[in-house]
Amino acid sequence: MQGTISEKIFSRASGGDASANDFVSANIDYAMAHDGTSVLALHSFQEMGVEKVWDADKIIVPFDHLIPASTEAAALLQKKTRDWVKEQGISHFYEGGEGICHQVLPEKGFALPGKLIIGADSHSCTYGAFGAFGTGVGATDMAEIFASGKLWFRVPETIKMTVDGTLQKGVFAKDLTLYLIGKTGISGATYKAVEYYGTAISDLSVAGRMTLCNMAIEMGAKAGIVPPDEKTFSYLKGRAAADYEPVYADSDANYLSEKYYDADDIEPQIACPHEVDNVVPISKVIGTPIDQAFIGTCTNGRLEDLAVAADILKGKTVKVRTIATPASRAVLLDAVESGIFETLVKAGVSFITPGCGPCLGAHQGVIAEGETCLSTANRNFRGRMGKGGNIYLGSPATVAASAITGEITDPREFL
Amino acid sequence: MQGTISEKIFSRASGGDASANDFVSANIDYAMAHDGTSVLALHSFQEMGVEKVWDADKIIVPFDHLIPASTEAAALLQKKTRDWVKEQGISHFYEGGEGICHQVLPEKGFALPGKLIIGADSHSCTYGAFGAFGTGVGATDMAEIFASGKLWFRVPETIKMTVDGTLQKGVFAKDLTLYLIGKTGISGATYKAVEYYGTAISDLSVAGRMTLCNMAIEMGAKAGIVPPDEKTFSYLKGRAAADYEPVYADSDANYLSEKYYDADDIEPQIACPHEVDNVVPISKVIGTPIDQAFIGTCTNGRLEDLAVAADILKGKTVKVRTIATPASRAVLLDAVESGIFETLVKAGVSFITPGCGPCLGAHQGVIAEGETCLSTANRNFRGRMGKGGNIYLGSPATVAASAITGEITDPREFL
Repeated sequence: MQGTISEKIFSRASGGDASANDFVSANIDYAMAHDGTSVLALHSFQEMGVEKVWDADKIIVPFDHLIPASTEAAALLQKKTRDWVKEQGISHFYEGGEGICHQVLPEKGFALPGKLIIGADSHSCTYGAFGAFGTGVGATDMAEIFASGKLWFRVPETIKMTVDGTLQKGVFAKDLTLYLIGKTGISGATYKAVEYYGTAISDLSVAGRMTLCNMAIEMGAKAGIVPPDEKTFSYLKGRAAADYEPVYADSDANYLSEKYYDADDIEPQIACPHEVDNVVPISKVIGTPIDQAFIGTCTNGRLEDLAVAADILKGKTVKVRTIATPASRAVLLDAVESGIFETLVKAGVSFITPGCGPCLGAHQGVIAEGETCLSTANRNFRGRMGKGGNIYLGSPATVAASAITGEITDPREFL
Repeated sequence: MQGTISEKIFSRASGGDASANDFVSANIDYAMAHDGTSVLALHSFQEMGVEKVWDADKIIVPFDHLIPASTEAAALLQKKTRDWVKEQGISHFYEGGEGICHQVLPEKGFALPGKLIIGADSHSCTYGAFGAFGTGVGATDMAEIFASGKLWFRVPETIKMTVDGTLQKGVFAKDLTLYLIGKTGISGATYKAVEYYGTAISDLSVAGRMTLCNMAIEMGAKAGIVPPDEKTFSYLKGRAAADYEPVYADSDANYLSEKYYDADDIEPQIACPHEVDNVVPISKVIGTPIDQAFIGTCTNGRLEDLAVAADILKGKTVKVRTIATPASRAVLLDAVESGIFETLVKAGVSFITPGCGPCLGAHQGVIAEGETCLSTANRNFRGRMGKGGNIYLGSPATVAASAITGEITDPREFL
C-alpha cells in the first residue's frame, strides 16, 4: 500500500491499512499530559473506574504551565497530580523546572520517527519535527488513552508543502513558519496533516524544525511532519527512549494538495494582533511601540534562539522589560555554559523558570490593558497574555532587536 | 547630648535634640516603595492634591513583589506606577528583575550610615545593617513623605544586644538571628530599636548583618542597627549614592535594657510553624518531612547564601522541589560567574527571577494545603505561602541539606 507519512503511521498503529479519512482505533506509543491538563485527565480516568493505567512507562507528565505554583489552586492541582503519578507508578514524571513538555519529550528521547504521540496540549504537533505523528487531544480523550492505550482517529488527508531556496540572513525558521501560516490561513489546513519538503526545510536545524512543526496547529493542522534525516538521527543518538523505524511517504502517495514556496523571497515576518495568520513582512510594522519583549516558549526557547538573541543584545541594554524562558533545564545549562545566559542577563533580560508562564498569560509576564508584547511564542489571540493587550509574534532575532529600541525593529539592522 | 544611634539619627533628621519617646518631625533621606505598595501610596498622594513629589531624586521604586507580572491586576497596577514614576520624573526606578528592594537599595548605595530611610515595606529595617535607621511604614504615611519629605515619629527606646563568642561551623547569621528572635519573642522589642554589638556581630559579613537586621521586625522592632565599621565602609566604597556621616552610640547612652548572648552556644536553629519566635535547635525537628525547599529572599538571597547551598548541593540532586531566588540581578550574575548558579541548576534547583514571589505566597512557589516548605525567608505565618501550608525557617545551609534528603536535616552532616 502506498501512503503518506500519516497513513503509514496510522497503519502501523492500528494494525491494518489506514488511508486518509478511514476511522481507525490506534495504539498510542506515548501519551503526555502536563500540569495544566493532567488533573482533568486523571479525574476523567478515575470516573471511568479503571484501576490502573494501561502502561505506566508510556505516560509522560511534565509540569510546565503554572510552575513554580502560581496560586493556591495551582499548588493543589499539582499536588493531586503528583499523588496520582506516585499511586500509578508513572515512571516519566518531570517536576516543574525540567522544561516545557514539547521540549522535554524530544530531549528525553520520546519524540521518535514513526511514533504516534498524543499530548493533552494543542502544540503536541511539535513532535512531527522528528517524523512522528504528534497531535493534541482534550483531557477526556487523554483519560481514554490512560485507560486503554488506544484512541480512535479519522486518518487525516495530507497537504505537501515544499519550500526550496535558502533563508536569507536575519530570516529564521520562525519567519518561514509565520510566512507559511500567513499563506495558508488559520483554518487552511484544518484536520489535515502537513508534510514539509524542500531544501529550506532540510537546511533547518532540529530546533528550527521544532519551531516549524510546533505551529502547524496554527493553520488548523492535526500534525506537521518533517521526514527524518541524518540531523534527526544524530539528535536522537544516545537519547532515543525506544527502538524506532523511520517512516517516509511513498513517491506516489496521495496528497490533498501540493504547495510550493521559495525561501529566498521571505523577509522577517510578524504576526499582528489578534490572529496568527495576520502575517506581514516586518517592513509594514517597523516602529510599532512595544511595552514588553518575550523570548522563549516551546516555539522558540532553544539554544539557537537564545544564542541569536544574545548576539544581538551583547553589550547593549534592553529599553523595555524583556523576559526570557529557556525551553528546558538542559537549554538553560547550555546557555549558562556558553555565556549566552550571562550576556542576556547583563543586557537586562529577566529569566523565568523554564516553563510556559507568560505565553498563555498564566503568570510571570502578564501584560496590562493597552500594552503590547512582541513575543516569540505561537499565539497572539486577543487577551491571551492579558485582557486588552496586543501580541505581535516574531523570531527571537526580531524580538531581541526590538527590545533594544522599544519598537518593532528589523533584526537585520543588528546582524 | 549623649545618645543611642537612633536618638542621634533622629536629632540630625529633626534638627534638634531628640531623645527616646520624644515626638519629632523628621526629614527623610530616602523613601522606598515597591510594586506591592507604591500604587497605594501614589493614590493617597494624588488624593492630597499635591502636584509634585518633594524630591524626585530621593524616592526609590523597585519592582519586586509580583514580577514578572503574575496577573492582569498586577500588570495594571505596575503600569499605573510606571506612568506615575515617569510623570513625576522619579530618577531611581528599577524594573522587575533588578532585585528585591532591600537588596537593591544597599547595592545602589542608598543604605548609608546615619541616614533615615523609610520604606513602604516591613523589612525596611534591613538598612540598619549599614548603620542607618531603616523602618517600614504604610502606604498613607509614604504618601505624606512623597508630598513633604517629612514624617513624624516617636523616637524609639533602644535595646542593646551583645553577642560575643564565635558562630560554630554550620551555624550562620540566620541561625543567630532566629536564636535572638526566639529569646526575645515576636513582641519582645515592639517599637524599640535594637543595637547589635559583640564579636559575633562584628565577625558577620555585610550580608550576614543584612540577614540579622532584616528580621529585627520579627521581634517587633522599629529598627535593628549594626554600628558601621570597616566592612561597611568597604562595601560602600564606590557605591555610596551620597556623602554620609557614620553615627555611633555614646558610651553612656541610655538603653532600655542590655542583653548578652554567647555565639558559641548556638546550634542551627529552626523557626517552626506558625510564628517566627517558635524557634528550636534543629535537633528537635530533624526528620520532619518537607515538600518544598526555598532558598533566597531579602533575608538570605545573597551570594554567600547561594554559595553555601551550592557547597552542599554540588554533585547531588534535590529530592523535593527546590526554588531559589537571588536577591538581585547583581547577585545572579555573581552566582553565574562563580559557577554557583550552574551547580544549583544541575542539582535540580529551579531559579525564579530575582524578586519576592513565594516568600509571601504571591506566586512562583505557592504551596498546597497540607504541604510543608522549609524556607530561608523571614516569616512563617499561617497561610503565608498558601492556605493550610506549613512553613519552617532555617539557614540556606539547612535548607540545602534538607532539599537533598526531603526532610529537615542538620547541615553539619554535609559541611
